Amino acid sequence: MKKPLILVCNDDGVNAPGIRSLIEATRDLGKMIVVAPDKPQSGTGHGITINSTLRLNKLESEEDFEMYSCSGTPVDCVKLAIYKMLPVKPDIVISGINHGSNASINVIYSGTMSAAVEGSLEGVPSVGFSLLYFDINADFSASKVIARKITKQVLESGLPKGVCLNVNIPKLSETELMGIKICRQAEGNWEEEFESRVDPTGKEYFWLTGTFKNYDSGTDTDIWALENNYVSIVPIQHDLTAHTSLNELKTWKL
Amino acid sequence: MKKPLILVCNDDGVNAPGIRSLIEATRDLGKMIVVAPDKPQSGTGHGITINSTLRLNKLESEEDFEMYSCSGTPVDCVKLAIYKMLPVKPDIVISGINHGSNASINVIYSGTMSAAVEGSLEGVPSVGFSLLYFDINADFSASKVIARKITKQVLESGLPKGVCLNVNIPKLSETELMGIKICRQAEGNWEEEFESRVDPTGKEYFWLTGTFKNYDSGTDTDIWALENNYVSIVPIQHDLTAHTSLNELKTWKL
Repeated sequence: MKKPLILVCNDDGVNAPGIRSLIEATRDLGKMIVVAPDKPQSGTGHGITINSTLRLNKLESEEDFEMYSCSGTPVDCVKLAIYKMLPVKPDIVISGINHGSNASINVIYSGTMSAAVEGSLEGVPSVGFSLLYFDINADFSASKVIARKITKQVLESGLPKGVCLNVNIPKLSETELMGIKICRQAEGNWEEEFESRVDPTGKEYFWLTGTFKNYDSGTDTDIWALENNYVSIVPIQHDLTAHTSLNELKTWKL
Repeated sequence: MKKPLILVCNDDGVNAPGIRSLIEATRDLGKMIVVAPDKPQSGTGHGITINSTLRLNKLESEEDFEMYSCSGTPVDCVKLAIYKMLPVKPDIVISGINHGSNASINVIYSGTMSAAVEGSLEGVPSVGFSLLYFDINADFSASKVIARKITKQVLESGLPKGVCLNVNIPKLSETELMGIKICRQAEGNWEEEFESRVDPTGKEYFWLTGTFKNYDSGTDTDIWALENNYVSIVPIQHDLTAHTSLNELKTWKL
């Protein structure tokens, strides 16, 4: 049987412990190519590099395993891998394991999830994994078990067309996890604060800070699952059309 | 009657002809604040500035009109305006007029549309406008009429919760336009090519190029409308959940 081809990406950069954990957890499931940013690219959303150039740097090459760093965004990495580096499309794109939550609205800002969305745009079953723990020394041992299980499942069953998975994992040990739940994206948002500071020449500048607010009382959301010690899986689509609003807008006299 | 508060943004930068046209077309409809990137930010998607700082620079201040440039992304501009600069939330966010199409999948890469999506996340009715013409000397005269008409409509009727509008305008004169159509996002994608070049030290680098492909034969899509000389309006949502896939995934044994 032919080994599946696995493309690995993230947004925390190729040296982040999270992507190293994802590689360890899934490396024996197929042939693997890692193409990940050469520096942290958190919060770059679905950004791509249009007005500048891209660099690739080969870091490792062994049997059934290659690893590259790329100067671009996570989406650039996926595009480069698919259109420039690989002879055929990968069988799966896995992204992460992100250091920090991509639940609820975080999905829209996340480079890690945008790499998965880009994979799904290319017709490749794709999954983004995130651990609810920012620390560089986060313990990824439970996340590795989850990531392996879900990667195997997706390799086996595929995914619906145009859909990728947003997997978030609570900061718990394997025995503390209550299970895995299929969820919808909770309605939530960041209430931002901008901290004003003054630079040495007397000019003002700003740092973005903020607090996530969950406005959703549903028990079928990713936030609910995570707060109740479940791993959450949200199927994510790139058709952004608000289909339920089409008829209302058609009543406009324009 | 109190004048509505209008927040204007874009991704081509505060000096682009497109945003200047949008300002001219809508300035008398209310009090206006412009907060737009100080440089081109095309293709930055829903990126935000996390690991760096932001600067604001006041460019103009007149009665009922203020204009600022910001060092960040379009989404940073909207967040700064709402959370740091304005005493109350704006009544509308308008973004653009973008130099180039944001129809079909382009919406996901577009900084102009991400500014509108960010507005809708804040509960503000928001619209992104794009003209299907990249040229810096594009003729925005028909686009101005369309942008004014739709801005007035949205100020009057609001928008469904969690929904913003993606308006694309063909490169035609006002008399050539066939009308305005409410559409869904066409299924399409970029087939990318990366042009390899060699720098003066002999190292390889890449430029992203590509061709948009429409895979959608529907006559209810934005691409169909634009190809048939209509202005397209697609309602866009930030709930990315693929609701129709939830039940299929729930059959998984995880």
